[in-house]
Amino acid sequence: MPEEFGRGYLYLHFRSMALVVQKFGGTSVADADRIRNVARRIVGTAQAGNGVVAVVSAMGRGTDELVALAREVSDRSHPRELDMLLTAGERVTMALVAMAIQDLGVEATSLTGSQAGILTTGRHGQAEILEIKADRVREGLAEGKVVIVAGFQGVDPSSKDVTTLGRGGSDATAVALAAALSADRCEIYTDVDGVYTADPRLVDVAARIQELSYEEMLELASAGAGVLMPRSVEFGRRFSIPIHVRSSFHDGVGTWVKEETMEQAIVRGIAHDVSAAKVTVYRVPDTPGVAATVFEPLAVAGVNVDMIVQNVSHDGTTDISFTVPEESLDSATAIAKEVAHKIGAGGVTVDTEIAKVTVVGIGMKTESGVAARMFRILADHGINIEMISTSPIRISCVVRGDKVGEAVKALHTGLGLDREADS
Amino acid sequence: MPEEFGRGYLYLHFRSMALVVQKFGGTSVADADRIRNVARRIVGTAQAGNGVVAVVSAMGRGTDELVALAREVSDRSHPRELDMLLTAGERVTMALVAMAIQDLGVEATSLTGSQAGILTTGRHGQAEILEIKADRVREGLAEGKVVIVAGFQGVDPSSKDVTTLGRGGSDATAVALAAALSADRCEIYTDVDGVYTADPRLVDVAARIQELSYEEMLELASAGAGVLMPRSVEFGRRFSIPIHVRSSFHDGVGTWVKEETMEQAIVRGIAHDVSAAKVTVYRVPDTPGVAATVFEPLAVAGVNVDMIVQNVSHDGTTDISFTVPEESLDSATAIAKEVAHKIGAGGVTVDTEIAKVTVVGIGMKTESGVAARMFRILADHGINIEMISTSPIRISCVVRGDKVGEAVKALHTGLGLDREADS
Repeated sequence: MPEEFGRGYLYLHFRSMALVVQKFGGTSVADADRIRNVARRIVGTAQAGNGVVAVVSAMGRGTDELVALAREVSDRSHPRELDMLLTAGERVTMALVAMAIQDLGVEATSLTGSQAGILTTGRHGQAEILEIKADRVREGLAEGKVVIVAGFQGVDPSSKDVTTLGRGGSDATAVALAAALSADRCEIYTDVDGVYTADPRLVDVAARIQELSYEEMLELASAGAGVLMPRSVEFGRRFSIPIHVRSSFHDGVGTWVKEETMEQAIVRGIAHDVSAAKVTVYRVPDTPGVAATVFEPLAVAGVNVDMIVQNVSHDGTTDISFTVPEESLDSATAIAKEVAHKIGAGGVTVDTEIAKVTVVGIGMKTESGVAARMFRILADHGINIEMISTSPIRISCVVRGDKVGEAVKALHTGLGLDREADS
Repeated sequence: MPEEFGRGYLYLHFRSMALVVQKFGGTSVADADRIRNVARRIVGTAQAGNGVVAVVSAMGRGTDELVALAREVSDRSHPRELDMLLTAGERVTMALVAMAIQDLGVEATSLTGSQAGILTTGRHGQAEILEIKADRVREGLAEGKVVIVAGFQGVDPSSKDVTTLGRGGSDATAVALAAALSADRCEIYTDVDGVYTADPRLVDVAARIQELSYEEMLELASAGAGVLMPRSVEFGRRFSIPIHVRSSFHDGVGTWVKEETMEQAIVRGIAHDVSAAKVTVYRVPDTPGVAATVFEPLAVAGVNVDMIVQNVSHDGTTDISFTVPEESLDSATAIAKEVAHKIGAGGVTVDTEIAKVTVVGIGMKTESGVAARMFRILADHGINIEMISTSPIRISCVVRGDKVGEAVKALHTGLGLDREADS
């Protein structure tokens, strides 16, 4: 009995100390009913004795609708004003969520990114969080209030202009706020149950992963697993904030992303990405420094080059291929053509019909042979590998775009993930 | 010829010096086409050599839609969060207007009420402008930019919370900004051509008034002429800002509201208001101080009592009637009932079927007999006068609601306004 009491006391004590940052994406707050639902969840967490900071996105397709409105008015680029426009989206959600929480008898206050002290670079549409001066968030918490913070937005302290963080920005807001507040955990509520061993739309025996390390999540996210963006995982890793990716539609446990995992899986999951394109500069004179000549101007232009392959030289020339995100394809192609002309290369080809398949597992650090198994499985299915890139815990292969479903399914089965369902 | 040159020079010189504040209401910015239209108008003013600050409202019924959204989520009152929500409306407009202006080759920057330094009281939904620290507006102008400012909104400097100014708030923003910036004029763009001698929907021979004094506009606005709210006229008067009320759909001159007018009209115009209600406390013991007992608690509750009539005493009791805006009727009635009970009055009746007809003219200050003419005209039409109130330049009569059209028409003709069309 004393032991029971002791346990209970510790449990309550732990609960009363916790500070939780919860993030709710657009689908979780798409209408009034869902907003009230989110409010109930936040209130439940608060009434269990936790301090709660909730980060919210724009309602449903709210951001898309504002972008469409901007396009109706203007077909040009207006970065500052577009950010001013888009930040109206989260403003609406945060006020409505705060109202719904107050209706449940819990005090709540909403803050814009600027009010919450989210200081960013001045790069409109793709600003990076520099620092969080969360004084007003702390004040709200100290007054016993739930604090609702607009995701995706911040302010450039030098110009005082409002900025947005780009794709996945609300996740980044949540994890960065959790870090700034030394929160106990960050919960990312989403429309899926967690992180899966592969995209369940491609692999019906894909299973929810119970926990994985920041490094694994980073590799999966970078390789196309859309549930979390790399930048938010990186924040979690840097400040050791456990991230719980879970469904906003039920109370079940999702996927924990954290420092140490119980099991060092050799293969944790498979991600794929059909959005990249391959640019090839062919018949490049094979002289020292030629790669730098190609990639320096791309870096200057902010093109995020992913994989690079340089062929063995024939007749003093070589082919250099690289993959870029779809949205950078036009500028990458233009730059490549300019460079090709300057260095006397044969020319530039573009291939958008590619897909990247990536296998991730922290156990690869110590266990060799995964790459060989991956190549064998693809070969057995007659799937040609066009490019390869690796990290200590990842192997990525570029294949034909129409082969991606077959490749992921074959690897999921062949690398033993089918059996590890909900391990 | 030298004279011609001189005139032209002076004209250009005047134009190049002017700073103009332009305000565009919800109907003027209701869709992408109208926003581009507003942008063209602003650019036209800027390219004529003026500094331009444009104050914009939420698009069309944008504010109503946000209020509806709030009602969907919650049926309670959340003043702070409602203001946070509503201010998203102007944010959208101002960004879109800035984009459209930039597309026409003129630099533009948008500022929220808070960014424009509109400091207000903390009374959410009905905040009053305390001060304008327009540093960022001035910076923008100094950089040669058109500055777009969100109307209707400000910030309470003590709590740092966002506030809204209530009905007519964007007009107030515009005129107050014009005052703070010592602008040469403030242009209020609206969906009518200006201020009319009577509501053209009631009186087809009503005519646009070319100019009128602040005092006249104040009386007309307070009496129900919806085109300008009294608070913005009061700002104009206090800081001597000429206000030009004009159509956003064409370039024609509208109505100037200013200090001195060319002609001191005896009757400038007629306003009417069917939105008020009459509350009567009957059989009130006729003792000293009883009026104070009735009206003090109404004042404390913020009920804006308009007209008051106390009947002659019979048998030691009297009836006290007063009119209140429709939105205050419930609270006024509750307070009146409480007071009636406390002072031993007979009870309280409420009459919502009333209308107020008001005749305004600065010439009444010197010319007597207008009241008598007004009463005679109404009597000749068999229209009973239930309450009367006057100021030096105004006479208001309460009549039955179903008589209001007839009363306004009869007065418009009888007081010679039909002939003064577009005087």
